[in-house]
Amino acid sequence: MKDQLVIFDTTLRDGEQSPGAAMTREEKVRIARQLEKMRVDVIEAGFAAASNGDFESIRAVAEAVKDSTVCSLARANENDIRRAGEAIKPANSGRIHTFIATSPIHMEKKLRMTPDQVVEQAVKAIGWAREYTDNVEFSAEDAGRSEIDFLCRIFEQVIKAGAKTINVPDTVGYNMPDQYAALIRSLIERVPNSDQVVWSVHCHNDLGLAVANSLAAVVAGARQVECTINGLGERAGNAAMEEVVMAVRTRGDFFPVTTRIDTTQIVPASKLVSQITGYPVQPNKSVVGANAFAHESGIHQDGVLKHRETYEIMRAEDVGWSANRLTLGKLSGRNAFRSRLQDIGITVESEEQLNIAFARFKALADKKQEIFDEDLHALMSDEEVTPAQEFFKLIASSVHSETGETPQAAITVQLGGVEQRAEANGSGPVDAIFKAIELIAKSEAQLLLYSVNAITSGTDAQGEVTVRLARNDRVVNGQGADTDIIIASAKAYINALNRLHDSTQRVDPQGETV
Amino acid sequence: MKDQLVIFDTTLRDGEQSPGAAMTREEKVRIARQLEKMRVDVIEAGFAAASNGDFESIRAVAEAVKDSTVCSLARANENDIRRAGEAIKPANSGRIHTFIATSPIHMEKKLRMTPDQVVEQAVKAIGWAREYTDNVEFSAEDAGRSEIDFLCRIFEQVIKAGAKTINVPDTVGYNMPDQYAALIRSLIERVPNSDQVVWSVHCHNDLGLAVANSLAAVVAGARQVECTINGLGERAGNAAMEEVVMAVRTRGDFFPVTTRIDTTQIVPASKLVSQITGYPVQPNKSVVGANAFAHESGIHQDGVLKHRETYEIMRAEDVGWSANRLTLGKLSGRNAFRSRLQDIGITVESEEQLNIAFARFKALADKKQEIFDEDLHALMSDEEVTPAQEFFKLIASSVHSETGETPQAAITVQLGGVEQRAEANGSGPVDAIFKAIELIAKSEAQLLLYSVNAITSGTDAQGEVTVRLARNDRVVNGQGADTDIIIASAKAYINALNRLHDSTQRVDPQGETV
Repeated sequence: MKDQLVIFDTTLRDGEQSPGAAMTREEKVRIARQLEKMRVDVIEAGFAAASNGDFESIRAVAEAVKDSTVCSLARANENDIRRAGEAIKPANSGRIHTFIATSPIHMEKKLRMTPDQVVEQAVKAIGWAREYTDNVEFSAEDAGRSEIDFLCRIFEQVIKAGAKTINVPDTVGYNMPDQYAALIRSLIERVPNSDQVVWSVHCHNDLGLAVANSLAAVVAGARQVECTINGLGERAGNAAMEEVVMAVRTRGDFFPVTTRIDTTQIVPASKLVSQITGYPVQPNKSVVGANAFAHESGIHQDGVLKHRETYEIMRAEDVGWSANRLTLGKLSGRNAFRSRLQDIGITVESEEQLNIAFARFKALADKKQEIFDEDLHALMSDEEVTPAQEFFKLIASSVHSETGETPQAAITVQLGGVEQRAEANGSGPVDAIFKAIELIAKSEAQLLLYSVNAITSGTDAQGEVTVRLARNDRVVNGQGADTDIIIASAKAYINALNRLHDSTQRVDPQGETV
Repeated sequence: MKDQLVIFDTTLRDGEQSPGAAMTREEKVRIARQLEKMRVDVIEAGFAAASNGDFESIRAVAEAVKDSTVCSLARANENDIRRAGEAIKPANSGRIHTFIATSPIHMEKKLRMTPDQVVEQAVKAIGWAREYTDNVEFSAEDAGRSEIDFLCRIFEQVIKAGAKTINVPDTVGYNMPDQYAALIRSLIERVPNSDQVVWSVHCHNDLGLAVANSLAAVVAGARQVECTINGLGERAGNAAMEEVVMAVRTRGDFFPVTTRIDTTQIVPASKLVSQITGYPVQPNKSVVGANAFAHESGIHQDGVLKHRETYEIMRAEDVGWSANRLTLGKLSGRNAFRSRLQDIGITVESEEQLNIAFARFKALADKKQEIFDEDLHALMSDEEVTPAQEFFKLIASSVHSETGETPQAAITVQLGGVEQRAEANGSGPVDAIFKAIELIAKSEAQLLLYSVNAITSGTDAQGEVTVRLARNDRVVNGQGADTDIIIASAKAYINALNRLHDSTQRVDPQGETV
């Protein structure tokens, strides 16, 4: 009987720290429901003390999710931990994940604390957390650059204080797999009562080794991997859950563990996270990239290869490619629509929302022959269907573009309830429409990124546009989908403006502490 | 004194096997010049026997590149090897890389040969290759699933026959780092005269471990890594050169080797390959992703962190971020333009081409305030400047799009020298223009992918559109860049049609052999 490897997903916490990947409460709940459906063991839903928005998001996830443990991050101080404890209260199973830095450079330069003070603070933190739950995880931030004697000392004390999971992150992605495995093995050997806790790893991908480091640690005895969908996360991201899970599964001969993950939910989860965060997945990404299972000859790979197993070690169906196919057409009724939404993990909040969504679905079906799951996800992300903080609203737009002439755009935007119209020229129709919107919005934001992906293939595909805006220190992504790329662009820009307008301030978990 | 790790780039060969990534001769030469500039040791420029186009591309690279070794792949048969030998003749330093499958499943099902026949064929192949060069590399295809005794036997024989590099690929990406390292270590120990050759590795990324496997093999004694820019390649791709190089460099304390690579050329190379192949790089990609060096707070990261080294293990400048900045404006003259092209590795073939390019540059500078290197790359990729097989040519286009109305497009295309005009409606302006083009071209191709990226930031950025078309078994990518996204889309579609129209057939190196 193999050990269970606990899959701890931090897409909603560490993944959200990617520039512009901040998610609304509703978006977090949608992703959490998909994670629950794929049988993730622990969902880290956020960092409760970061802002009221984060707190409310964790609470909403804790209310919505029943089969996965819901976790909040908390620095090792009383306020953070009490906020985390309150946020996870509605959960069937809740966890508090508290951390403090243990490397000399972080203790000295960031915390400005002595090693003794750090140990004392960590032990106190476990005590506060246990007032809310017995399921407490402790992380030594920047463990990869910490002294092993000090790690042994602090881990011994927090285990004594009641921590149930001990996490050893490689915060800056500096470790090599063999070194990291040796560290984990050594900690498990040296720390008293190490068999009473689950050892966990959290790796970053700066040198492209997050998955390799995680897997090496599993061989060395780790039984929890912290990871994200698509490897999302700060800088080069975290270990990609899909790669960790499929390596363990494909190489069952090699690993002493199994996971509970329903792998057929991997691709749907990847698409959902990509769509919500605006972070594309490159085609040559392992497991979830569009080419991961395609050979050069492309479409008819089976005919080209004499025997499929000569080049395939995994099957596309096993990770949910193709599970995600058609679905609805022009004649589909309201019930079929509602039940398909449920199948793909979208919960409609009210009959009114269903009515709006169904009307939009019918309008889309008029323009597009087949409606795929991806179209439904895009449709439900639309602000008309799922309104966020909608200060700006697109009413109408018009563009004209002709070779040799300057493109022109006109736009009508509702701003705080009042309609305004503007016209502008630009170097292209998208430039023109963005300039026209700015004449009304006057945000003075800087456009950092503009990208378009077709959600499905075919010429009648919906285009999904991502716009990244920056103003002062804030970076936001806006999304918009439409079969008309210009309208999708206008929607995305306005969505980003709405997010900039929602000026909630957040605390950075790796900034000031205590 | 550390050993040198040979960096063998196969972007132009294995990378080109990605669906739709086929490159023209001119594009291959541009990438090869950049690889030479970054001091890549060996450039695998293609597979000479695949098609006349491949042969000519390798020859052109061999003529253009002086400081890197230029290599052609060849199956272990006389015709393939003679084609490879002819193709590399112009090179200062040329290599022939011949391979045959050695795993039981491949020998039986693909080659239909006995192990004895495979050894005999491999030895003959080395002999043919040595008629052209002493620099001969031998690969055991699917070594990862081959029997080690058989590998020892075939390697002993090919070394005796004169092979100078022995490559041990993990063709299907199945190995774990420790296993793969053990295989390499064992081969080096067991094969007679193993110290007379360079041991090489070639890893695929199906489980996300290509880089980890390559690095583990280096620790075990491998001294050549086969890799690609951006990890491009079939399925989930090859080991990413930028990750291998930066791991070796950043962890100089750990690795017994150094590379010759000029790391400041990494980001320019990444952008060039992405632009030419149409393969985007995801923002959370290690080293070359847009976020690789960005923290959540985004723009002003230095102000946010108390000490930079607390979170950074590499510096963005070291890999060429920011090296690639401005550049040219509206008032730049012809000489500045020409010399900037040279700096970024673009060689203008004739005065006439320079004139066309300069005129296009001036037109772009009228629309766009600042011209960046990326803009110049896009401009030089344009068919007006660098004509490929231009059967279809865009003359004029016009679109109108308005909320609540059906988008309309009109287009004039030259087809084999004759201008034709067509109008169409569509679900969006891009759909409408593609339909109008199809009314003229009647290609009946299927649209597999449509994506847009802004080449530079700012609202006046050029949009670069990639269109992937499929017809029967052929898949091609087309690119087009313009400040007007609709015109860029039309250009990309027409570029793809031209590539489909060039109906050269290629042989798949991993299809039939001998």
